[in-house]
Amino acid sequence: MSISNPIVYDCIVVGAGLAGLVAARNIHRSGHNVLVIEAQDRFGGRMYGQYLPSKQWIDRGGQWVGPTQDRFLALLDEYGVRRFPSPAEGRKVLIFDGKRYEFDGFFQGFPEGEPPSISEEEWRDAMDAWERFETLTKELPSGHPRRDRQNQKLDSQTFIQWIEENTLTAFGRWYFSYMSRAVGYLGPAEPSQVSLLHVLWGNNCAPQSEHPEAELLHGGAGQIPEKIATELGTRIRLREPVLRICHDQAGVEVETLKSRFTAKFTIVAMPPHLAGRIIYDPPMPPLREQLTQRVPMGCCAKILISYDRPFWRDKGLAGIGLGNCKWIELCADSSDPETGVGVIATFVVGDRYRDWRSMSDSDRRAAVLSDLAIYFGDEALSPSTYDEVDWPSDPWAGGGYAAFMPPGVWTSFGEALTAPVGRIYWAGTEMAERWPGFFDGAVRTGEAAAKAIMSFL
Amino acid sequence: MSISNPIVYDCIVVGAGLAGLVAARNIHRSGHNVLVIEAQDRFGGRMYGQYLPSKQWIDRGGQWVGPTQDRFLALLDEYGVRRFPSPAEGRKVLIFDGKRYEFDGFFQGFPEGEPPSISEEEWRDAMDAWERFETLTKELPSGHPRRDRQNQKLDSQTFIQWIEENTLTAFGRWYFSYMSRAVGYLGPAEPSQVSLLHVLWGNNCAPQSEHPEAELLHGGAGQIPEKIATELGTRIRLREPVLRICHDQAGVEVETLKSRFTAKFTIVAMPPHLAGRIIYDPPMPPLREQLTQRVPMGCCAKILISYDRPFWRDKGLAGIGLGNCKWIELCADSSDPETGVGVIATFVVGDRYRDWRSMSDSDRRAAVLSDLAIYFGDEALSPSTYDEVDWPSDPWAGGGYAAFMPPGVWTSFGEALTAPVGRIYWAGTEMAERWPGFFDGAVRTGEAAAKAIMSFL
Repeated sequence: MSISNPIVYDCIVVGAGLAGLVAARNIHRSGHNVLVIEAQDRFGGRMYGQYLPSKQWIDRGGQWVGPTQDRFLALLDEYGVRRFPSPAEGRKVLIFDGKRYEFDGFFQGFPEGEPPSISEEEWRDAMDAWERFETLTKELPSGHPRRDRQNQKLDSQTFIQWIEENTLTAFGRWYFSYMSRAVGYLGPAEPSQVSLLHVLWGNNCAPQSEHPEAELLHGGAGQIPEKIATELGTRIRLREPVLRICHDQAGVEVETLKSRFTAKFTIVAMPPHLAGRIIYDPPMPPLREQLTQRVPMGCCAKILISYDRPFWRDKGLAGIGLGNCKWIELCADSSDPETGVGVIATFVVGDRYRDWRSMSDSDRRAAVLSDLAIYFGDEALSPSTYDEVDWPSDPWAGGGYAAFMPPGVWTSFGEALTAPVGRIYWAGTEMAERWPGFFDGAVRTGEAAAKAIMSFL
Repeated sequence: MSISNPIVYDCIVVGAGLAGLVAARNIHRSGHNVLVIEAQDRFGGRMYGQYLPSKQWIDRGGQWVGPTQDRFLALLDEYGVRRFPSPAEGRKVLIFDGKRYEFDGFFQGFPEGEPPSISEEEWRDAMDAWERFETLTKELPSGHPRRDRQNQKLDSQTFIQWIEENTLTAFGRWYFSYMSRAVGYLGPAEPSQVSLLHVLWGNNCAPQSEHPEAELLHGGAGQIPEKIATELGTRIRLREPVLRICHDQAGVEVETLKSRFTAKFTIVAMPPHLAGRIIYDPPMPPLREQLTQRVPMGCCAKILISYDRPFWRDKGLAGIGLGNCKWIELCADSSDPETGVGVIATFVVGDRYRDWRSMSDSDRRAAVLSDLAIYFGDEALSPSTYDEVDWPSDPWAGGGYAAFMPPGVWTSFGEALTAPVGRIYWAGTEMAERWPGFFDGAVRTGEAAAKAIMSFL
């Protein structure tokens, strides 16, 4: 096809998540004419805040930031968003096979501090495997995994197979399976669903050893989309799913159910599977077409529970729990010290989500709270507020935290993840080479896409 | 939402592939008011014929039928489509690691007849593994794989891992890898991409031992869509991609770029990933949403090469070649005895497709023909016609032969594959419990969806 209408915009950004907003803002600031089109009635995507009746904020999407997430930190500084250390003082709780351990360390995708007092054999098993995992990780070069013999080998197996071959105890096995379900770049995915290569790659470019959950934001991450959007003003259109993008050598025409818009370039700033749902004319190249069929979103609900005060601290607990409970494998104190309210953020993930989601509203709530009571005591059963965010039920996210790669996708289709197609560019945390699955990755890809396009404007 | 416009149709079928056409025809024949909406400018989907200048037909999509494919056979009989045995007289050719073997047997996903004269050790290795593969297959109950401990175990590994654990020789390994890339229910997929459970399930419900490629059709399979469409007359709308389906307790409203149509029910008759690209209001349940992100189409181009006559028969060859050549692992005589023209159907599949597709038009053609010359002699280099069908470049198929399941999809999301959502039903060969990936599976699901809906009309 060729575009018949005159070109109006320099760039149309499809999707007003963090990556799209950052890209649009940078293009706008350089004096170019930009338009953002968003399917939902809000901007921010998986960066999504909410105020409780108590004026306490909660983050329905992502919430944390770490010390090496440079680009996100720069954004926070620019908008004057203040940070505070994620509450971690006190003893952490591990529940394993019904037994309770309190300890001073941590081990979400990186062992640190005092280990829990499980048997020496179990801990040794997990740590031996961890060493092998780290060695494998360090063999990977930086950047997206390339197609070579070594990577194809790693990409041909699921993470669970590596776990089974490298652990001897139920604890060792759970240690890594839990990691697969808890860490940002991993979907979350059940370890039976994700490529070993993807896990190693994520551990290389988004390592837990750099503490990506070290800090929280006063007022929450959810305040940021609005700050960027304010700068863009009327250049954002909400409630208009983009259905079709026609493109030729002169520009692009972006079509919604209501209107058509033309531009010199477009940035599609969405997870790959959503980018794949748009009709392209001419169609996407075959590798890109097949890629977007193969990059699913993680399967997770986030639940935010608030209490009058962080009662767990009275018991010397940090409000951080990990373990193989029936529903809750990870929960974390997310209380803002300036409000005095106690907030626990937790997740129901993977196959647990599947079963949990099939229950009634009240059963789901009871399930979550009774697991919290195992971690922190019966006070957990009486929260002030209880909010579920069911990401797989949101068609404009399709899941959360982020997308992940099943076996054989990186090495056969990976090169189509970021390659522009004519005047169409891609952004979103899934495309990042550093901190994929985190806010920082989204900022990086938004900045990069804007820069690439502006070099032609 | 609720639908405000009056209900016009009893059923709207989205997608005019074989499953959709069969469903619509059955509903129409029962006196109900049906409408078919198709994105492309033709009907048939992956059932797609073409006439060459010589009046010889070729099938750009599927072409074969086997003796236990009851529902497809019944359809052929009904429309008076005559069959003939797939040409197989003469010696088959195996090329393995550059060595050429002629033999009288066959082994595409089922060993039969005289084996090629490769070493006893290599053949024994493949056959020992085959026995284990068959034993595992027979342990599966019929129907779609359920979520139980045994299936979860099988579903947590890639096929290549099973192959590596169960074969000792390069030939044994290739024997099964080739199967993964050649058999209908397998995508095709590289064995690193597909779940072991999926492979076993397919071998159970769509076994090569029942000879699904035993016969071809005079005039080709591509004539069938038109025969069904003739019966439906003006009840088919072409060139109208369905963008949104609103649904409530009273009915559905199906929206294209041009129009809206209402009905009591809808059947979405497309592969899962395409069904997932429609906007649903209210959205799909979370398991269905996540499923459609996880069921990719196979990666394959089909190439049809015709010659004045089937020259290979002069040499006593059957026109059937298998082997680990650079591009062509499988080619098959598809000549209609009534025309006298020689036709070879072949495929470039998986990672081979990836590299082949990146070459120029003339290099791709030269690559295919030079491999054919290895199988059948230099006469193969001078065809009358050469037609490539690039299925992954067709956005309304997204690939071919069919979709397949990566690890962890069947046991975590499989139940959402066929479950109706309110008044929305699903059809297509990917949903079949018998002969998935074949025409017969498409017919079965079309018939079943029509029957389910008519029980309410």
